Amino acid sequence: MAEGRNDRRLLNPFAGELAAEFAGTAILILFGVGVVAQVVAGGIGDHDSIAWAWGLGVTLGVYTAARLSGAHLNPAVTVALAVFKGFSWRKVLPYALAQTAGAFVAALLVRWNYAEVLAKVDPGHTIKTQGVFSTLPGNGTLPVTQWGALRDQIIGTAILLFLILAISDERNSAPLANLAPVIVGLLVVAIGMAWGTDAGYAINPARDFGPRLASFFTGYGSAFRDQYGGLYFWVPIIGPLVGGVIGAGLYQLLVARFLPRTDAPEPGRTPEPAAQAG
Amino acid sequence: MAEGRNDRRLLNPFAGELAAEFAGTAILILFGVGVVAQVVAGGIGDHDSIAWAWGLGVTLGVYTAARLSGAHLNPAVTVALAVFKGFSWRKVLPYALAQTAGAFVAALLVRWNYAEVLAKVDPGHTIKTQGVFSTLPGNGTLPVTQWGALRDQIIGTAILLFLILAISDERNSAPLANLAPVIVGLLVVAIGMAWGTDAGYAINPARDFGPRLASFFTGYGSAFRDQYGGLYFWVPIIGPLVGGVIGAGLYQLLVARFLPRTDAPEPGRTPEPAAQAG
Amino acid sequence: MAEGRNDRRLLNPFAGELAAEFAGTAILILFGVGVVAQVVAGGIGDHDSIAWAWGLGVTLGVYTAARLSGAHLNPAVTVALAVFKGFSWRKVLPYALAQTAGAFVAALLVRWNYAEVLAKVDPGHTIKTQGVFSTLPGNGTLPVTQWGALRDQIIGTAILLFLILAISDERNSAPLANLAPVIVGLLVVAIGMAWGTDAGYAINPARDFGPRLASFFTGYGSAFRDQYGGLYFWVPIIGPLVGGVIGAGLYQLLVARFLPRTDAPEPGRTPEPAAQAG
Amino acid sequence: MAEGRNDRRLLNPFAGELAAEFAGTAILILFGVGVVAQVVAGGIGDHDSIAWAWGLGVTLGVYTAARLSGAHLNPAVTVALAVFKGFSWRKVLPYALAQTAGAFVAALLVRWNYAEVLAKVDPGHTIKTQGVFSTLPGNGTLPVTQWGALRDQIIGTAILLFLILAISDERNSAPLANLAPVIVGLLVVAIGMAWGTDAGYAINPARDFGPRLASFFTGYGSAFRDQYGGLYFWVPIIGPLVGGVIGAGLYQLLVARFLPRTDAPEPGRTPEPAAQAG
Repeated sequence: MAEGRNDRRLLNPFAGELAAEFAGTAILILFGVGVVAQVVAGGIGDHDSIAWAWGLGVTLGVYTAARLSGAHLNPAVTVALAVFKGFSWRKVLPYALAQTAGAFVAALLVRWNYAEVLAKVDPGHTIKTQGVFSTLPGNGTLPVTQWGALRDQIIGTAILLFLILAISDERNSAPLANLAPVIVGLLVVAIGMAWGTDAGYAINPARDFGPRLASFFTGYGSAFRDQYGGLYFWVPIIGPLVGGVIGAGLYQLLVARFLPRTDAPEPGRTPEPAAQAG
Repeated sequence: MAEGRNDRRLLNPFAGELAAEFAGTAILILFGVGVVAQVVAGGIGDHDSIAWAWGLGVTLGVYTAARLSGAHLNPAVTVALAVFKGFSWRKVLPYALAQTAGAFVAALLVRWNYAEVLAKVDPGHTIKTQGVFSTLPGNGTLPVTQWGALRDQIIGTAILLFLILAISDERNSAPLANLAPVIVGLLVVAIGMAWGTDAGYAINPARDFGPRLASFFTGYGSAFRDQYGGLYFWVPIIGPLVGGVIGAGLYQLLVARFLPRTDAPEPGRTPEPAAQAG
Repeated sequence: MAEGRNDRRLLNPFAGELAAEFAGTAILILFGVGVVAQVVAGGIGDHDSIAWAWGLGVTLGVYTAARLSGAHLNPAVTVALAVFKGFSWRKVLPYALAQTAGAFVAALLVRWNYAEVLAKVDPGHTIKTQGVFSTLPGNGTLPVTQWGALRDQIIGTAILLFLILAISDERNSAPLANLAPVIVGLLVVAIGMAWGTDAGYAINPARDFGPRLASFFTGYGSAFRDQYGGLYFWVPIIGPLVGGVIGAGLYQLLVARFLPRTDAPEPGRTPEPAAQAG
Repeated sequence: MAEGRNDRRLLNPFAGELAAEFAGTAILILFGVGVVAQVVAGGIGDHDSIAWAWGLGVTLGVYTAARLSGAHLNPAVTVALAVFKGFSWRKVLPYALAQTAGAFVAALLVRWNYAEVLAKVDPGHTIKTQGVFSTLPGNGTLPVTQWGALRDQIIGTAILLFLILAISDERNSAPLANLAPVIVGLLVVAIGMAWGTDAGYAINPARDFGPRLASFFTGYGSAFRDQYGGLYFWVPIIGPLVGGVIGAGLYQLLVARFLPRTDAPEPGRTPEPAAQAG
């Protein structure tokens, strides 16, 4: 049985970290892109289903990867941890690539499984169902420009990183019993319900670009553009990377610098994401 | 009082395991088939109610049976644990029969309690309300073939088993405080919201075949067929059995083989399903 | 400050138990009857809101009363614990009266706060908004008879008690970290979503009769009758009392008698409801 | 890195308390006002989304601030803790100002991010979208007067404080594993579903007045008035302050005075809000 094997030559820890980031992000996308396909193409559920299933996908992806990699599942998280928490800069690009690859493969699975219903609802594979895979300004219908969407992605990801740090900081008031993944999932549910109007709450470059590529390679010719015809794919990449650093910095400013220093981790606490990987 | 009795001759542990699988699966179906009856025949609630109540039914069924049997409640779980976790192959068929019997009895209870409203909405007991009890390709209305449904059941159950193992593996990052049953329930909520379009997310042969039998014996003459007239009952049996093994194998490949070996279980952890039963 | 006082002559433990049952059931009704008023008279929310708020009301009521009385909040629970768990029969009637009084007072508060919107939607205070306070067969519109509603209340309350015992039995697989009140609340959410069609899931004589009295005394002349004109108030009293005993008995039969006996409670476990009160 | 610094001259504990109250209330409003903007101006979601995101905002705000300030996030909580729990009266006004400032700044961020969609839906910035920021009697459409709204705010905040004390009282049956913030969030979800008809469940003077000011300074000229033209802003200030004290007093009367005294806090318990700040 593969489980019992412990071949030290093949299974170096960094390979395990990348496998975990790949798998955890794939789980996130299997639910996140899956639920949008179900709502948009299958006609089952509504925006609240989308918010819940994205959030639950985050929870399940974090449980998958937390032990091996700390479960970043998001380049904006990886970069912010490198800036503020000592996560190794040399690992940032490999993590981001593993995350994007996981998102890409998972989106291909959704694309395959929902091929019939997508073909029925949108035979030309146009912008009508592009939103199943990647985000658009104003969800493709509201009067939001690229600038508005960029602003939104900066703010939304700042909220995400501020709260990821607040929840996982062992010096602050973190949930115990290894339930931080549930709270992080609920955080994404709440972002989906309150911060999804202007740009569909990508708040994660891998979540957006991986599935965008998957849609482009399977018939969605305008995958990189918005409803006005402009190149858009960079907005949910740049916005989250910038916003994540801002949010993590605000957490240092408003909360972390007032907390007492601790040298020994308390037993029972969820380790901080960077702790295993740093 | 029966509780105080401890008659070793009658109460052998294996009988307790089967009773628990029977009861836990019955609880699952009382909520799962119950909510579809309420939505479809009673006109109360919508697809999200179905996703939530199925998931909560899983949580409650697992709490019912976890101590005695490990709460498989699903032949696809039982088979995957036999393949990858050393669960005894001799117990596989009895477990599957107990699960199916629990589902059958619970579905009869729902059938009885909702007899009046089912008779009003669908006097002929046709395919119109067949979906209360068992699944159909494309939920009976979308353009999904038997092949599409089989593919969907393989993928959906692979996701289920991958994550059941990820959540309950004591070497990975499992929830503590005996809350894994809640996370497994939320997993099924998310599958319902994201993977229910093509085949109604049976992802469990007992869940599908037990209630299908119950409907067949109580007036649903075409219970074994899909909306195109073809024999369909085998799809949500074969698909989950195959998919569960694939998903459990992918968990070994992407996560488990990178985890450190542990010999002693950590205190406070939920025991793995196979631990009691193996 | 009242808090610091510890006057043994006045504050006997049994008074505390009754105060807790009064307060906990009042909390349950403030949310349960409140949400139906908001949906039916205020036009805000839908049946799923009702299911969630009832369940959350249970969770919050249990947290209120668990320490002092074990948080029965329901005569069907009290009676079943007397039959199967050694809860003192002498306390059964006082508990049931305290529960009903709490439900009555809380329903008066809802009646007062929603007076304007109830008067607008249903100026005659007829059966149209009777369902805000008490239950009706088929929710007042579906073709369910008194017999059908009685059957439904027996089954629904049997499910409730089976699972309350399964969740709170320290020998079984109970949630830790004092989170059983959350699981019991989710249980009531699921019953609302799956078992609310035939009789509006009273599953609790105090929940139904207390608010029914409150509506009768404030202008609802036909509060004791169903939509066909028959006396109905007894159905959600007798059904739950009978069903609770059946469900608790089935738990003994299918699960409890297979569990090992324990003499010492495990640390960290939620005490069984009857433990403090017995 | 700012995190490592520990400059005792600048970082006095009281500054940390105020920063935490500012940040925690800002988080609450980023989700709470954000979700109403998304529903009302973006057309995405419904009243249940509002209830869930407000509640999740409370949970996340409490996790942000609990360690440093006890996470009152609400002047009605601060005042009730001063009356019943020995919280320092000298800190009441600074806390209330920090809470209101956090709500004000967060509401400006929402106002900025939703500027385009608000301008499209309500170009004149009238009472039509005033409800995004602050509350109105009868949600602006139902026949509820200022008196009715005041009564509602007193009752609603009494329920809030009764249950905050019931959940966080270490002598009562509090949730463990530092999960009280989740239960407090669910409490606010339930209040939103059951007690939001008459006055939009402000139940928090800072939550209402901070965003009201933000809307007034950004184009909402009638921000302080209700749909009948009367000055209204005082109702969701006075009502919660009065109701909170009543609810906390009822908790003392019905539950707390029956509880045993404890001198030593139990390990693993969430500290009471006042414990750090008193």
